[in-house]
Amino acid sequence: MVDILHRVGMKSSIDEVYKALATREGAAAWWASDTKGESKVGGRLKFTFTHEGRELGGFDMKVLELQPAKRVLWQVVEGPAEWVGTKISFDLKQEGDFCLVLFKHEGWKEPVEFMHHCSTKWAVFLMSLKSLVENGRGAPSPNDVKIDNDVD
Amino acid sequence: MVDILHRVGMKSSIDEVYKALATREGAAAWWASDTKGESKVGGRLKFTFTHEGRELGGFDMKVLELQPAKRVLWQVVEGPAEWVGTKISFDLKQEGDFCLVLFKHEGWKEPVEFMHHCSTKWAVFLMSLKSLVENGRGAPSPNDVKIDNDVD
Repeated sequence: MVDILHRVGMKSSIDEVYKALATREGAAAWWASDTKGESKVGGRLKFTFTHEGRELGGFDMKVLELQPAKRVLWQVVEGPAEWVGTKISFDLKQEGDFCLVLFKHEGWKEPVEFMHHCSTKWAVFLMSLKSLVENGRGAPSPNDVKIDNDVD
Repeated sequence: MVDILHRVGMKSSIDEVYKALATREGAAAWWASDTKGESKVGGRLKFTFTHEGRELGGFDMKVLELQPAKRVLWQVVEGPAEWVGTKISFDLKQEGDFCLVLFKHEGWKEPVEFMHHCSTKWAVFLMSLKSLVENGRGAPSPNDVKIDNDVD
Protein backbone atom coordinates (compact mmCIF):
# COMPACT_ATOMS: atom_id res chain seq x y z
CA MET A 1 0.00 0.00 0.00
CA VAL A 2 1.23 3.45 -0.87
CA ASP A 3 -0.42 6.76 -0.06
CA ILE A 4 -0.63 10.26 -1.44
CA LEU A 5 -0.05 12.74 1.39
CA HIS A 6 -0.26 16.52 1.44
CA ARG A 7 -0.52 19.39 3.89
CA VAL A 8 -1.53 22.93 3.06
CA GLY A 9 -1.99 25.89 5.38
CA MET A 10 -4.72 28.34 4.46
CA LYS A 11 -5.31 31.77 5.97
CA SER A 12 -8.93 31.05 6.76
CA SER A 13 -11.24 29.92 9.50
CA ILE A 14 -11.62 26.19 9.89
CA ASP A 15 -15.38 26.60 9.31
CA GLU A 16 -14.84 28.12 5.87
CA VAL A 17 -12.52 25.29 4.85
CA TYR A 18 -14.89 22.67 6.23
CA LYS A 19 -17.75 24.17 4.22
CA ALA A 20 -15.65 23.99 1.04
CA LEU A 21 -15.00 20.29 1.68
CA ALA A 22 -18.29 19.14 3.15
CA THR A 23 -20.81 20.66 0.75
CA ARG A 24 -21.49 19.97 -2.93
CA GLU A 25 -21.30 23.69 -3.74
CA GLY A 26 -17.97 23.92 -1.92
CA ALA A 27 -16.40 20.98 -3.74
CA ALA A 28 -17.65 22.37 -7.07
CA ALA A 29 -15.79 25.60 -6.35
CA TRP A 30 -12.30 24.05 -6.04
CA TRP A 31 -12.35 20.50 -7.46
CA ALA A 32 -14.90 19.77 -10.19
CA SER A 33 -17.42 22.37 -11.32
CA ASP A 34 -19.60 19.46 -12.40
CA THR A 35 -20.32 17.96 -8.97
CA LYS A 36 -23.64 16.20 -8.45
CA GLY A 37 -25.23 14.29 -5.59
CA GLU A 38 -25.74 14.81 -1.92
CA SER A 39 -23.02 15.46 0.62
CA LYS A 40 -24.36 13.62 3.65
CA VAL A 41 -23.03 10.58 5.47
CA GLY A 42 -23.95 7.55 3.37
CA GLY A 43 -24.69 9.80 0.39
CA ARG A 44 -22.90 9.77 -2.94
CA LEU A 45 -21.12 12.56 -4.80
CA LYS A 46 -20.36 12.39 -8.51
CA PHE A 47 -17.44 14.48 -9.77
CA THR A 48 -17.07 14.83 -13.55
CA PHE A 49 -14.00 16.34 -15.21
CA THR A 50 -14.00 17.99 -18.61
CA HIS A 51 -11.47 19.64 -20.89
CA GLU A 52 -12.45 21.94 -23.73
CA GLY A 53 -16.00 20.63 -23.58
CA ARG A 54 -14.92 16.98 -23.70
CA GLU A 55 -15.75 14.71 -20.78
CA LEU A 56 -12.58 13.12 -19.40
CA GLY A 57 -14.19 10.88 -16.78
CA GLY A 58 -14.64 11.23 -13.09
CA PHE A 59 -15.11 9.72 -9.69
CA ASP A 60 -18.10 8.69 -7.58
CA MET A 61 -17.50 8.97 -3.86
CA LYS A 62 -19.46 7.62 -0.95
CA VAL A 63 -19.40 10.09 1.92
CA LEU A 64 -18.22 8.13 4.98
CA GLU A 65 -17.56 10.88 7.54
CA LEU A 66 -18.56 14.51 7.97
CA GLN A 67 -17.25 15.87 11.26
CA PRO A 68 -17.81 19.62 11.34
CA ALA A 69 -14.61 21.67 11.59
CA LYS A 70 -12.62 18.45 11.86
CA ARG A 71 -12.72 15.80 9.16
CA VAL A 72 -14.21 14.71 5.85
CA LEU A 73 -13.79 11.15 4.55
CA TRP A 74 -14.82 9.81 1.15
CA GLN A 75 -14.48 6.37 -0.43
CA VAL A 76 -14.24 5.93 -4.17
CA VAL A 77 -17.02 3.68 -5.45
CA GLU A 78 -16.68 4.33 -9.19
CA GLY A 79 -13.90 5.64 -11.38
CA PRO A 80 -10.52 4.46 -12.68
CA ALA A 81 -9.67 0.92 -11.47
CA GLU A 82 -6.71 2.24 -9.43
CA TRP A 83 -9.06 4.54 -7.49
CA VAL A 84 -11.95 2.21 -6.69
CA GLY A 85 -11.93 1.28 -3.00
CA THR A 86 -9.34 3.93 -2.05
CA LYS A 87 -10.16 6.49 0.64
CA ILE A 88 -9.66 10.24 0.64
CA SER A 89 -9.55 12.16 3.89
CA PHE A 90 -9.18 15.79 4.89
CA ASP A 91 -8.28 16.48 8.53
CA LEU A 92 -8.46 20.06 9.71
CA LYS A 93 -6.87 21.99 12.53
CA GLN A 94 -6.67 25.67 13.34
CA GLU A 95 -3.29 27.21 14.16
CA GLY A 96 -3.54 30.93 14.75
CA ASP A 97 -4.95 32.58 11.62
CA PHE A 98 -4.33 29.43 9.61
CA CYS A 99 -6.34 26.32 8.94
CA LEU A 100 -4.06 23.37 8.21
CA VAL A 101 -5.47 20.72 5.89
CA LEU A 102 -3.90 17.30 6.25
CA PHE A 103 -4.79 15.29 3.17
CA LYS A 104 -4.49 11.55 2.54
CA HIS A 105 -5.47 9.44 -0.46
CA GLU A 106 -4.93 5.95 0.90
CA GLY A 107 -5.19 2.42 -0.41
CA TRP A 108 -3.32 2.55 -3.71
CA LYS A 109 -2.12 -0.96 -4.52
CA GLU A 110 0.95 0.03 -6.53
CA PRO A 111 2.93 3.25 -7.05
CA VAL A 112 2.03 3.32 -10.76
CA GLU A 113 2.84 6.33 -12.92
CA PHE A 114 -0.82 7.41 -12.76
CA MET A 115 -0.41 7.69 -8.98
CA HIS A 116 2.52 10.10 -9.46
CA HIS A 117 0.24 12.20 -11.68
CA CYS A 118 -2.61 12.12 -9.17
CA SER A 119 -0.27 13.13 -6.35
CA THR A 120 0.74 16.31 -8.17
CA LYS A 121 -2.79 16.94 -9.34
CA TRP A 122 -4.16 16.72 -5.78
CA ALA A 123 -1.59 19.36 -4.78
CA VAL A 124 -2.79 21.55 -7.63
CA PHE A 125 -6.41 21.17 -6.47
CA LEU A 126 -5.49 21.79 -2.81
CA MET A 127 -3.88 25.04 -3.97
CA SER A 128 -7.22 25.75 -5.68
CA LEU A 129 -8.98 25.14 -2.34
CA LYS A 130 -6.49 27.51 -0.67
CA SER A 131 -7.19 30.15 -3.30
CA LEU A 132 -10.95 29.68 -2.84
CA VAL A 133 -10.92 30.22 0.92
CA GLU A 134 -8.26 32.95 0.85
CA ASN A 135 -9.39 34.94 -2.21
CA GLY A 136 -12.90 33.69 -2.93
CA ARG A 137 -11.89 32.06 -6.20
CA GLY A 138 -10.76 28.49 -6.83
CA ALA A 139 -9.68 26.86 -10.08
CA PRO A 140 -11.87 23.75 -10.34
CA SER A 141 -12.12 21.62 -13.49
CA PRO A 142 -12.44 22.63 -16.33
CA ASN A 143 -10.35 25.66 -15.29
CA ASP A 144 -7.72 23.65 -13.45
CA VAL A 145 -4.01 23.90 -14.19
CA LYS A 146 -3.16 21.14 -16.67
CA ILE A 147 -0.05 19.08 -15.96
CA ASP A 148 -0.38 16.33 -18.51
CA ASN A 149 0.14 15.93 -22.22
CA ASP A 150 -3.23 14.33 -22.88
CA VAL A 151 -6.11 13.58 -20.58
CA ASP A 152 -5.90 15.06 -17.12
CA MET B 1 9.53 3.34 3.85
CA VAL B 2 7.22 5.85 2.26
CA ASP B 3 7.87 8.00 -0.79
CA ILE B 4 6.82 11.30 -2.25
CA LEU B 5 5.89 10.80 -5.90
CA HIS B 6 4.93 13.32 -8.56
CA ARG B 7 4.61 13.59 -12.33
CA VAL B 8 4.36 16.81 -14.30
CA GLY B 9 4.17 17.29 -18.06
CA MET B 10 5.89 20.37 -19.43
CA LYS B 11 5.59 21.75 -22.94
CA SER B 12 9.32 21.85 -23.48
CA SER B 13 12.21 19.93 -24.95
CA ILE B 14 13.76 17.34 -22.71
CA ASP B 15 17.11 19.15 -23.05
CA GLU B 16 15.68 22.37 -21.57
CA VAL B 17 14.23 20.48 -18.60
CA TYR B 18 17.45 18.54 -18.08
CA LYS B 19 19.43 21.79 -18.05
CA ALA B 20 17.11 23.22 -15.39
CA LEU B 21 17.70 20.16 -13.22
CA ALA B 22 21.35 19.39 -13.89
CA THR B 23 22.95 22.81 -13.54
CA ARG B 24 23.33 25.10 -10.53
CA GLU B 25 21.92 28.03 -12.50
CA GLY B 26 18.93 25.92 -13.53
CA ALA B 27 18.11 24.76 -9.99
CA ALA B 28 18.44 28.34 -8.74
CA ALA B 29 15.79 29.41 -11.24
CA TRP B 30 13.03 27.10 -9.96
CA TRP B 31 13.96 25.75 -6.48
CA ALA B 32 16.24 27.95 -4.37
CA SER B 33 17.69 31.20 -5.69
CA ASP B 34 20.48 30.70 -3.18
CA THR B 35 22.08 27.59 -4.69
CA LYS B 36 25.80 27.08 -4.28
CA GLY B 37 28.25 24.34 -5.18
CA GLU B 38 29.06 22.32 -8.23
CA SER B 39 26.62 20.17 -10.15
CA LYS B 40 28.84 17.29 -11.22
CA VAL B 41 28.75 13.62 -10.25
CA GLY B 42 30.28 13.37 -6.78
CA GLY B 43 29.89 17.13 -6.29
CA ARG B 44 27.80 18.85 -3.67
CA LEU B 45 25.01 21.41 -4.04
CA LYS B 46 23.88 23.62 -1.17
CA PHE B 47 20.32 24.96 -1.34
CA THR B 48 19.39 27.68 1.15
CA PHE B 49 15.82 28.88 1.69
CA THR B 50 14.87 32.31 2.96
CA HIS B 51 11.69 34.19 3.78
CA GLU B 52 11.56 37.96 4.08
CA GLY B 53 15.34 38.10 4.44
CA ARG B 54 15.41 35.45 7.17
CA GLU B 55 17.28 32.19 6.54
CA LEU B 56 14.96 29.23 7.08
CA GLY B 57 17.48 26.46 6.56
CA GLY B 58 18.27 24.27 3.62
CA PHE B 59 19.58 21.07 2.17
CA ASP B 60 23.00 19.86 1.00
CA MET B 61 22.81 17.30 -1.77
CA LYS B 62 25.46 15.03 -3.16
CA VAL B 63 25.01 14.63 -6.91
CA LEU B 64 24.90 10.88 -7.59
CA GLU B 65 23.76 10.71 -11.22
CA LEU B 66 23.63 13.11 -14.16
CA GLN B 67 22.41 11.32 -17.28
CA PRO B 68 21.81 13.92 -20.01
CA ALA B 69 18.19 14.11 -21.18
CA LYS B 70 17.33 11.19 -18.91
CA ARG B 71 17.91 11.35 -15.16
CA VAL B 72 19.22 13.37 -12.23
CA LEU B 73 19.73 11.80 -8.79
CA TRP B 74 20.69 13.57 -5.59
CA GLN B 75 21.21 12.30 -2.06
CA VAL B 76 20.64 14.51 0.96
CA VAL B 77 23.79 14.77 3.06
CA GLU B 78 22.81 17.68 5.32
CA GLY B 79 19.49 19.18 6.34
CA PRO B 80 16.50 18.27 8.51
CA ALA B 81 16.93 14.86 10.19
CA GLU B 82 14.00 13.42 8.22
CA TRP B 83 15.75 14.29 4.94
CA VAL B 84 19.31 13.10 5.62
CA GLY B 85 20.03 9.95 3.63
CA THR B 86 16.92 10.25 1.45
CA LYS B 87 17.24 10.32 -2.34
CA ILE B 88 15.62 12.63 -4.86
CA SER B 89 15.35 11.62 -8.49
CA PHE B 90 14.00 13.19 -11.66
CA ASP B 91 13.41 10.86 -14.61
CA LEU B 92 12.63 12.47 -17.94
CA LYS B 93 10.90 11.31 -21.08
CA GLN B 94 9.69 13.10 -24.18
CA GLU B 95 6.12 12.51 -25.40
CA GLY B 96 5.30 14.63 -28.41
CA ASP B 97 5.73 18.30 -27.49
CA PHE B 98 5.84 17.44 -23.80
CA CYS B 99 8.60 16.45 -21.45
CA LEU B 100 7.27 14.32 -18.61
CA VAL B 101 9.11 14.61 -15.30
CA LEU B 102 8.73 11.64 -12.99
CA PHE B 103 9.80 12.72 -9.52
CA LYS B 104 10.58 10.59 -6.46
CA HIS B 105 11.76 11.57 -2.99
CA GLU B 106 12.50 8.18 -1.49
CA GLY B 107 13.68 6.86 1.84
CA TRP B 108 11.43 8.63 4.35
CA LYS B 109 11.29 6.52 7.50
CA GLU B 110 7.83 7.61 8.65
CA PRO B 111 4.90 9.48 7.05
CA VAL B 112 5.26 12.36 9.52
CA GLU B 113 3.29 15.58 9.09
CA PHE B 114 6.43 17.29 7.78
CA MET B 115 6.43 14.75 4.95
CA HIS B 116 2.87 15.76 3.99
CA HIS B 117 4.09 19.36 3.84
CA CYS B 118 7.13 18.46 1.73
CA SER B 119 4.96 16.46 -0.67
CA THR B 120 2.80 19.50 -1.44
CA LYS B 121 5.81 21.79 -1.49
CA TRP B 122 7.60 19.61 -4.05
CA ALA B 123 4.50 19.86 -6.26
CA VAL B 124 4.60 23.65 -5.89
CA PHE B 125 8.28 23.71 -6.91
CA LEU B 126 7.69 21.31 -9.82
CA MET B 127 5.03 23.76 -11.03
CA SER B 128 7.74 26.42 -10.72
CA LEU B 129 10.02 24.26 -12.91
CA LYS B 130 7.15 23.90 -15.42
CA SER B 131 6.68 27.66 -15.45
CA LEU B 132 10.42 28.19 -15.94
CA VAL B 133 10.72 25.95 -18.99
CA GLU B 134 7.36 26.97 -20.49
CA ASN B 135 7.41 30.71 -19.81
CA GLY B 136 11.00 31.47 -18.89
CA ARG B 137 10.14 32.35 -15.30
CA GLY B 138 10.08 30.09 -12.25
CA ALA B 139 9.16 30.94 -8.67
CA PRO B 140 12.16 29.74 -6.62
CA SER B 141 12.64 30.60 -2.94
CA PRO B 142 12.27 33.29 -1.65
CA ASN B 143 9.50 33.94 -4.21
CA ASP B 144 7.86 30.55 -3.81
CA VAL B 145 4.20 30.07 -2.97
CA LYS B 146 3.92 29.72 0.80
CA ILE B 147 1.72 26.91 2.12
CA ASP B 148 2.56 26.97 5.78
CA ASN B 149 1.72 29.09 8.78
CA ASP B 150 5.30 29.48 9.93
CA VAL B 151 8.54 28.30 8.43
CA ASP B 152 8.33 26.86 4.96
